[in-house]
Amino acid sequence: MKIPLRRAGGEGGRVPLARQIQSHLERLIRQGLLAPGVKLPASRELARDVGVNRTTVAAAYEELIAAGWARAHVGQGTFVAERVPASVEPAPAAVPRLDWSELLSRRAQVALADRHRRRSYSQPARTAPGTISFAGGMPDSALFPTDAFRRVLNRVIREEGRELLQYYPPTGYPPLRRYLAAYLLRFGVEAHPAEILIVNGSQQGFDLVARTLLDPGDLVAIEQPSYPRAMQVFRSFGAELLPVPMTASGLSLFHLERLLERQAPKFLYCQPSAHNPTGLTMSLAVRQRLLELAVRHRLPIVEDGFDGTLFYGERPPGPLKAMDPAGLVVYIGTFSKILFPGLRLGWLVAPPALIERLEMAKQLADIHTSPLLQAAVYHFCERRLLERHQARALREYGRRRSALLEALARLMPPGVTWTETEGGFSLLLTLPEGLETGALLPRAQARGVTFTPGEAFFSDGGGERSLRLSFSAVALPQIEEGMKRLAEAIRELGRHPAHPAREPEMAVPIV
Amino acid sequence: MKIPLRRAGGEGGRVPLARQIQSHLERLIRQGLLAPGVKLPASRELARDVGVNRTTVAAAYEELIAAGWARAHVGQGTFVAERVPASVEPAPAAVPRLDWSELLSRRAQVALADRHRRRSYSQPARTAPGTISFAGGMPDSALFPTDAFRRVLNRVIREEGRELLQYYPPTGYPPLRRYLAAYLLRFGVEAHPAEILIVNGSQQGFDLVARTLLDPGDLVAIEQPSYPRAMQVFRSFGAELLPVPMTASGLSLFHLERLLERQAPKFLYCQPSAHNPTGLTMSLAVRQRLLELAVRHRLPIVEDGFDGTLFYGERPPGPLKAMDPAGLVVYIGTFSKILFPGLRLGWLVAPPALIERLEMAKQLADIHTSPLLQAAVYHFCERRLLERHQARALREYGRRRSALLEALARLMPPGVTWTETEGGFSLLLTLPEGLETGALLPRAQARGVTFTPGEAFFSDGGGERSLRLSFSAVALPQIEEGMKRLAEAIRELGRHPAHPAREPEMAVPIV
Repeated sequence: MKIPLRRAGGEGGRVPLARQIQSHLERLIRQGLLAPGVKLPASRELARDVGVNRTTVAAAYEELIAAGWARAHVGQGTFVAERVPASVEPAPAAVPRLDWSELLSRRAQVALADRHRRRSYSQPARTAPGTISFAGGMPDSALFPTDAFRRVLNRVIREEGRELLQYYPPTGYPPLRRYLAAYLLRFGVEAHPAEILIVNGSQQGFDLVARTLLDPGDLVAIEQPSYPRAMQVFRSFGAELLPVPMTASGLSLFHLERLLERQAPKFLYCQPSAHNPTGLTMSLAVRQRLLELAVRHRLPIVEDGFDGTLFYGERPPGPLKAMDPAGLVVYIGTFSKILFPGLRLGWLVAPPALIERLEMAKQLADIHTSPLLQAAVYHFCERRLLERHQARALREYGRRRSALLEALARLMPPGVTWTETEGGFSLLLTLPEGLETGALLPRAQARGVTFTPGEAFFSDGGGERSLRLSFSAVALPQIEEGMKRLAEAIRELGRHPAHPAREPEMAVPIV
Repeated sequence: MKIPLRRAGGEGGRVPLARQIQSHLERLIRQGLLAPGVKLPASRELARDVGVNRTTVAAAYEELIAAGWARAHVGQGTFVAERVPASVEPAPAAVPRLDWSELLSRRAQVALADRHRRRSYSQPARTAPGTISFAGGMPDSALFPTDAFRRVLNRVIREEGRELLQYYPPTGYPPLRRYLAAYLLRFGVEAHPAEILIVNGSQQGFDLVARTLLDPGDLVAIEQPSYPRAMQVFRSFGAELLPVPMTASGLSLFHLERLLERQAPKFLYCQPSAHNPTGLTMSLAVRQRLLELAVRHRLPIVEDGFDGTLFYGERPPGPLKAMDPAGLVVYIGTFSKILFPGLRLGWLVAPPALIERLEMAKQLADIHTSPLLQAAVYHFCERRLLERHQARALREYGRRRSALLEALARLMPPGVTWTETEGGFSLLLTLPEGLETGALLPRAQARGVTFTPGEAFFSDGGGERSLRLSFSAVALPQIEEGMKRLAEAIRELGRHPAHPAREPEMAVPIV
C-alpha cells in the first residue's frame, strides 16, 4: 500500500508518522475503499512499503483498533471492523470531475432509456421475509446437482487443468461441440460441430447475433410478448422492434404476413417452445407455415430454444432449425435453464458462412468462454448426469406447474385470465379490464407475494394488465398460498383501483 | 434421435427398417454430424424414439460396425469409429441457401476486413514439431498453480455452490470486489468496491467501454504500436484510430499535444506499464504530464494495466488511475496474465457515473460473469496464493527475459534493434532497413523458430520490419537456441531478401 508521509523537516513534519498512517487508513475505511472485513496489510509489509519502522505501523494499527475502525484476530492479522462509524465522505474534488454522461454512445443512451422505462415495473431489491416470489424466471437451486458437478470439475482440472486454464480457441471445447451435435440430433437438428459456437449463455448469443447482423435503423420482428433482454440488446444496437401478436398456437402468421408485405425485417426473433413469459408452444402447423413464409420472404429467423426438454404436456414439435432447408435459422441454446444459470454457458448453431462471423464477434467480445466450465459440463453430460437431472427437475417443475394452474382456476376472481403454460418456467396472467399491474404490485407485496409485471415483455408499452408468474423456483406447498394472497390483492384492487404504483428499485436481472 | 422411416405399405416400403436406420446413421457419420468417438444412443432408447423393435436397432448397429462406421465397447455401448471413410458430403440443397454475407452489419464488415488484413501476418495453426515459439503472449502453463486452484474451487462449491451456480447480480461477487479495492490501494489506486465491475478478462473490458462510449466516426487516440485486439474492437464499433508514436519513456507527448490541438478523440487507450508488444514503461514524468494534458483537454483515458506486478527492473510508477483527480481514467485489470487466462476474469474501475453504464452494457452482453470462478479466485487471493504464485512466476519470467536480452545482444546481426523490455511478456524487435518480417517468417519457421509479425500491432499498416518476441512461455534452455535460429534466418534473409511471404492460417488468437 502507498501512503504519502510528511517526514520531519518537511512541511507539517511535526505530525508523528504513526499518526499519519492511522489517519490515512482511517480515511480509506471511512470512504469505504477498505471495506468491512477486509484484511489490512501485515505490519511488516506495510512498514517496508512506506519505509518506516514496523513498530510505527503497529502503533497506528493499535490506534485504529482502539477507535473501533479495525480489529485484530490473533494469529490472522488486523481486519477492517465489520461495522464502522458510517459517514461516507466523498473524496475532495481537486479539479472539476469529468461529466461522463455527455460522452455516452447512442447505444448506451438507448440502453439507459430502456432502463428508466423498466425501472417502473421491476422487482424490489429485497422482498419482505415470508414473501412468496413468482418473480424470477430461474431454475430452483434446491434441485441443483451441485455435488455431482463438483466431482466432474475436480476430475477435469486434475486431468486437463493446464490446457483448460490457458488461452483457448474461440469456438469452444471440441468434445462439447461434438456432444452438442449428437445431442441436437435428438430434436432433429442436424448441425456439424463446426456449425456450433460456445457462448456465455443465450444472452451472449443474442448479443453476437445483434452485433453481426444489426445496423442502426434495422427492423427486427418479434413475438409480442417476448423476452425483455433480447429486445433490449436488439434495441441497443439501433434496431426498431416490430411486434407480432401471439395466439395460443404461436405467433400470428396472419399478422406476420401482413408485416412482411410492407416491411423487410433483418430477422424474426422467436421462442417456439417454452416461450417466456407465456409458456406456450408454437404448433407444428404454424412452424411449417412460418418456415414457408420465411423461405418465400428470405426472412432469417433467430430461434431461442430451451432445447425442447422443458415441457409438461405433449412433447413439442422439433425446433424450427430442424426444418430449415434454406439455412435461414440461427438456433440459440443454453444450459442456464436445465442445469446452472451461473455457469453462463450456451451455444449458437448457424450456417457455416454466418458461424464464422459470429466467431469473430465472440473473439472481439471476450476471446472465448472458460474452457474449464465447458469441459466440466461436457463430462457431466457425457456421463448422462444431465439426463438424470433433467428428468428429475422436469418432474418437479411439472408438479409445480399443475399446482399453479389448479390454484389459479380455483382461486382467481372472475375476469382474470392466464396462458395454459406447456413448457418453460412461467405463464402470463391478465387482469380484468380497468385494473393495472403497476397498482397491483405494491398491494401484492404488502400481502407477501410478488411477480414480474408484464410491461417488460411488451415491446410497445402495452401489457399494463399483465404479469408473469414463474413457478419453477417456488416450492410446491407455497404455490397455493401465494395464489391466495395474489387473488386477495386482485380483489382488493378491484375495490380500490386508484392506488398509485410505487417505484421499487431493481436488483436482480429479469430472466 | 429422430429418424424418418418409410413403413411397409408406404412409398419405398420394401427397404427393411434396420437398413433404413443404418443408412440414416451412416449419412450422419459421413457428414460429420455424428463425430468420431461420439456415443450412439442406447439401442433401447433409439428403438423407443423411432418406434421399432430393439432388435431392429441392434441389427442396424451391427451393420454399421461391420462396415467400419462404428465400434462396440462391451458394457459401454456403441461409438462412432475414430476413423471413418472420409468423404464429407454436403447436405443436398433442397432450396437455395440464404446468403448471409449480404446481411452483415457494418460492424461485422469492419471486423472481417481487419481479419483479412491480419491473416497475412498471423500464426500458422500448427508449427512443426521442435519449433521454438515466441509467438503467444501468454503465461507459461507449466507454472500454473493448478492444484491449489482446484482445492479452492472445491471448497467454494461445497460451501456456496447453490448461490454461485444460480443467476447473479451483474456487478460481480462482492468479496472479490472488496478484495480488489484493497488490492488496488497497493498501487495507489483508490477505488470503492462499487466502482469496480467484474468482466470476462480485459477483452470484455475493452468491448464494454467501446459499446458505452463509441459511435461510428468517433476518434480514439492510441499508442503506436499497441495491442491488436483493443484496436480491433474499437474499430468494430466504428472508431477511427489516431496513432501516437512511442518513445523509450512512453508515448510521445509532443505528438499527442499536436494531435489534441487539431482533433478531439473520444478517449486515449494506453498501456503505461508492461506495454504489449514493447515491454516498455511510461516514466513518471510522462505520466504526470499526460494527465495534465488530459485534464486540460478533457481527454478520457482508458488505461490497460497489467496491474503493475509484471516488472523485471525497477517497480513502475503507479497507474494513471492513481493520479486521476478529475475522474478521467478508466482502468482495466485482468487475472489472465498473472494467473489463468482460461478463467476469463478481469475488472474495470471507473467513476460511478460511468460504471453504472458499463454495468448495463455488461447485463446486455452476457448478464454476468460466472460467480463460481469469481469466488474461487477470491479465495485463492485471500489465502495469499496469488501473491505466492506472482513472486514465483515473476522470478521465472525475469530469468527468461534476461536470457532473451543477453542472447539478442550476443547473436543478432548488426542493424537489428529491440526494445529493452521492463515488464510484461514480450519485446519488439526491428529488422534492418530493406528486410521485411513477412519474408522472414517462413524462413524462421523453416529453421524451427516462430514469432508474431509486428504489423498486427500498428494501426496504420506500418511495422513491416518489426516482430514481437514473447519470452514468457519459452523454457529457459530454449531461448538461446531460438535466437540462434532467428539470427540465422535474418542473415539468410539479408542475403536473399526477395522471398515472398506465404499465408499461414490463423488458429489461436493473438494475445
